[in-house]
Amino acid sequence: MLWSGWGDPGKAQELPPSVGKLLRDLLGVTEPETPAASFGEVRLPLSALPAPVMTRLSTLVGDEHVRCDEDARIRHTRGKSTPDLLRMRAGDGDDAPDAVVLPGSHREILDLLKLCTEHRVAVVPFGGGTSVVGGLVASRDEYAAVIALDLARLNRVISIDKVSMIAELEPGLRAPQAEQILARHGLTLGHFPQSYEYATVGGFAATRSSGQASAGYGRFDDMVVGLTVATPRGTLELGRAPKSAAGPDLRQLILGSEGAFGVITSLQLRVRAIPATRLYEGWRFPSFKAGQAAMRRIAQEGPLPTVLRLSDETESMIGLARPAELGTLAEAGCLMITGFEGAEEDVAHRREAVAALLSELGGVYRGTEPGERWHEGRFAAPYLRDALLSAGATVETLETAGFWADLPRLYDAVGLALRATLDEPLVMCHVSHVYATGASLYFTVVSAQEEDPVAQWERAKRAVNKAIVLSGGTISHHHGVGRDHRVAYAAEIGDLGVEILRAVKGRLDPYGILNPGVLIP
Amino acid sequence: MLWSGWGDPGKAQELPPSVGKLLRDLLGVTEPETPAASFGEVRLPLSALPAPVMTRLSTLVGDEHVRCDEDARIRHTRGKSTPDLLRMRAGDGDDAPDAVVLPGSHREILDLLKLCTEHRVAVVPFGGGTSVVGGLVASRDEYAAVIALDLARLNRVISIDKVSMIAELEPGLRAPQAEQILARHGLTLGHFPQSYEYATVGGFAATRSSGQASAGYGRFDDMVVGLTVATPRGTLELGRAPKSAAGPDLRQLILGSEGAFGVITSLQLRVRAIPATRLYEGWRFPSFKAGQAAMRRIAQEGPLPTVLRLSDETESMIGLARPAELGTLAEAGCLMITGFEGAEEDVAHRREAVAALLSELGGVYRGTEPGERWHEGRFAAPYLRDALLSAGATVETLETAGFWADLPRLYDAVGLALRATLDEPLVMCHVSHVYATGASLYFTVVSAQEEDPVAQWERAKRAVNKAIVLSGGTISHHHGVGRDHRVAYAAEIGDLGVEILRAVKGRLDPYGILNPGVLIP
Repeated sequence: MLWSGWGDPGKAQELPPSVGKLLRDLLGVTEPETPAASFGEVRLPLSALPAPVMTRLSTLVGDEHVRCDEDARIRHTRGKSTPDLLRMRAGDGDDAPDAVVLPGSHREILDLLKLCTEHRVAVVPFGGGTSVVGGLVASRDEYAAVIALDLARLNRVISIDKVSMIAELEPGLRAPQAEQILARHGLTLGHFPQSYEYATVGGFAATRSSGQASAGYGRFDDMVVGLTVATPRGTLELGRAPKSAAGPDLRQLILGSEGAFGVITSLQLRVRAIPATRLYEGWRFPSFKAGQAAMRRIAQEGPLPTVLRLSDETESMIGLARPAELGTLAEAGCLMITGFEGAEEDVAHRREAVAALLSELGGVYRGTEPGERWHEGRFAAPYLRDALLSAGATVETLETAGFWADLPRLYDAVGLALRATLDEPLVMCHVSHVYATGASLYFTVVSAQEEDPVAQWERAKRAVNKAIVLSGGTISHHHGVGRDHRVAYAAEIGDLGVEILRAVKGRLDPYGILNPGVLIP
Repeated sequence: MLWSGWGDPGKAQELPPSVGKLLRDLLGVTEPETPAASFGEVRLPLSALPAPVMTRLSTLVGDEHVRCDEDARIRHTRGKSTPDLLRMRAGDGDDAPDAVVLPGSHREILDLLKLCTEHRVAVVPFGGGTSVVGGLVASRDEYAAVIALDLARLNRVISIDKVSMIAELEPGLRAPQAEQILARHGLTLGHFPQSYEYATVGGFAATRSSGQASAGYGRFDDMVVGLTVATPRGTLELGRAPKSAAGPDLRQLILGSEGAFGVITSLQLRVRAIPATRLYEGWRFPSFKAGQAAMRRIAQEGPLPTVLRLSDETESMIGLARPAELGTLAEAGCLMITGFEGAEEDVAHRREAVAALLSELGGVYRGTEPGERWHEGRFAAPYLRDALLSAGATVETLETAGFWADLPRLYDAVGLALRATLDEPLVMCHVSHVYATGASLYFTVVSAQEEDPVAQWERAKRAVNKAIVLSGGTISHHHGVGRDHRVAYAAEIGDLGVEILRAVKGRLDPYGILNPGVLIP
């Protein structure tokens, strides 16, 4: 993973000249005066890890699994939000952990948490490092040091139960590796968020990830039937049945806890047979409103496609993932992608029913080409962001969700907040996760970089967070809370909700060493 | 509701002579020497509610809504488990609340909880009073008095949003009344547990109820998208979107909390269009194992029927809900019911796919008659229980759930525990709730009453609880924890899980007045 950007540096994208022209002409984007810092230029504070702790950590997990070198520390600094990348590009390594520790087992993690509690060392659980909400930046206040607890060594498939269709995986397994191993058994999780190529299954659970095929395979939290969690106070083992009436569902308290309650050390996940057939198609709707009405009907009456997404007018026209064609799509309207995966008959049945409904509701069929193109490029956007940042644009994504009746208000409010705080930004939106009672809204915004692009974005982000809270939406549909959404999150769950979180935190992590400053307001 | 049994006394069933004969011949059941106590014979302790509290409660909710009369107190004594009924039949009113209070609003409940906190009065939230796990018997230790907080006056439909397909209901609304009002708008919840005719929507949420049509409409916890909760520490308002990544799902902490964390004062529930078509059918499978294998295929590969249930060999033969035919069904095998509700095309498609799969897997189609008969009698079993108790049988139901691979072991373990602790009992089982990764097992057991039938059943129940815990199942799929499952529940979630519950309880209800002794070990 590129330390200051996304993904495989060999796959870096160059902006096509037409896009560069458009950025200049439409948004007034100009190339930044200062080029991005090189790896060697990053300013890194000295490691504050006390030597005795270092020694004990080494004894615990093995010398080679405690790393204080610059490479390890820089690669575990922050996540992949735009402000995270902008800070790294500016050579700012201030938030680097003092050490990176790679335990090899649940037992080692339990011991490590005890050790760190004893020495007041903050622990940041680290999976793929793909957080876009500041989920990997611990507060240093009152702590002797901060370590990144990298789960890379917990990367086994523990068991596969083809009767119950459950696979037990370790948290550090990256999604592509998990899919590779499951594929040997004819199985898949079907979880493909944009972070897929780098994210881990533990991270998916800790942040309530939702994949692009959520209509068909469900959100990641739907897939989790069991969890083992290491906390400073011991082990939690949750999940004896798919569903239960034995009290509150405590799994749902760990899902979304972002490392603040404990470290997930194994996951029992529902798996499915690899689909025999896949089909992706495009539809055009006259407006975002008309397209949403069609999505809603499908979500409420079924059958559902496996993938269902709808771009608003601007996103449809710009086609962010296809910069080469910028400006060539003059036709008005909104692009909807429908994807079907499954057994042949099942795909045929759902496809036919969905197509009939979409036609009836004003959709115009555009063939498989837009669908296949979306499918091919579905992990590419973060690469494009790097190119846009280099070209002098401030670009970021953000998302929310709400009930259907609230979505128009939510959409308007976010757009207004962005336009009020950024200088003539390009604001694009799509709906990519639908439910019977509501859906998510995912925004991409591009504007010319100001002198201090971090401050610029933080200003816009504050306004958007406020707009979402006031419009009744949730502060995140699948990115999580991290540090960036904490204030809005507190407003969302209220004082008593915050107190519940603090009570649970106080019991599981009494000295507050786990990801301090993240999630809990 | 009959004070010492189930339902409408006018609908009481008499056992057909053939059943009486079978009970005598097969199980050695003889009529009890002492007939059940009459209403006037119930021994009721004097109300312990301190006069000043009584006065303040009356000021708060109005004189007419604070009741200390015998009728009110007896009708709010315990729930509807077999031991509950046996105790009432024996004239034992020891667990009666000292008063029944009927607040009229969220605000009044908040004030009531403060008042009761101040005076150390335990509060038992009371909906339909249909708990079968001791969920309505508060511990008296250390409390000045115990009141039943009857939610009957919070029985409005607050709003219906046909765009989002969400209805906001008050908790005291009984299921049939909710359905009646929703039906005027062409809507239904689709939630039909056996307690349907008396239970309330608040109770469904507080106990994670699951209806007989759960395959099609989902469990009740799946339907809840928003909750308002009154606690001694103030109000919780949860749910801004169908799903969210904004931290742990706190709704899932209230669902299943059985009144121990707060009183649910309003619910936002997903609703659906009333189905245009309904179809119920029967299938015969050569064995419970073969039938379960077919259910599993359907649950994992779809499409799902709306109702899917399978009786084991004994239940199929006895046909508990059809006592008139006892002994006439000589043919071996297991009866499966498949029900389909929805739009005509949807029903036709699912029905065809399910029928094809069932035929392929060894099912023999038995027409609509068994399905329709099941549908007609689906709320009748509790009436039959009353008749069996009067005839001298000890009869009770219990349930669990587990992953598919664990079900055979779970089934055997429960059967063994019952046979080891009861004298040649009749043990019947069905699967009535299926998921991709597992299913529930629902047992009915009948045996001859011993001299102390309460002690007899408690002995069996202890053995079964232990067997379920040791076999890896959950202690309840849809009945809840109450008092009867607390020990097993503690084993299920472990010490740290219990600590989490206590931490949350301590924050929301610091003086522990809410349903003490229920849920939390």
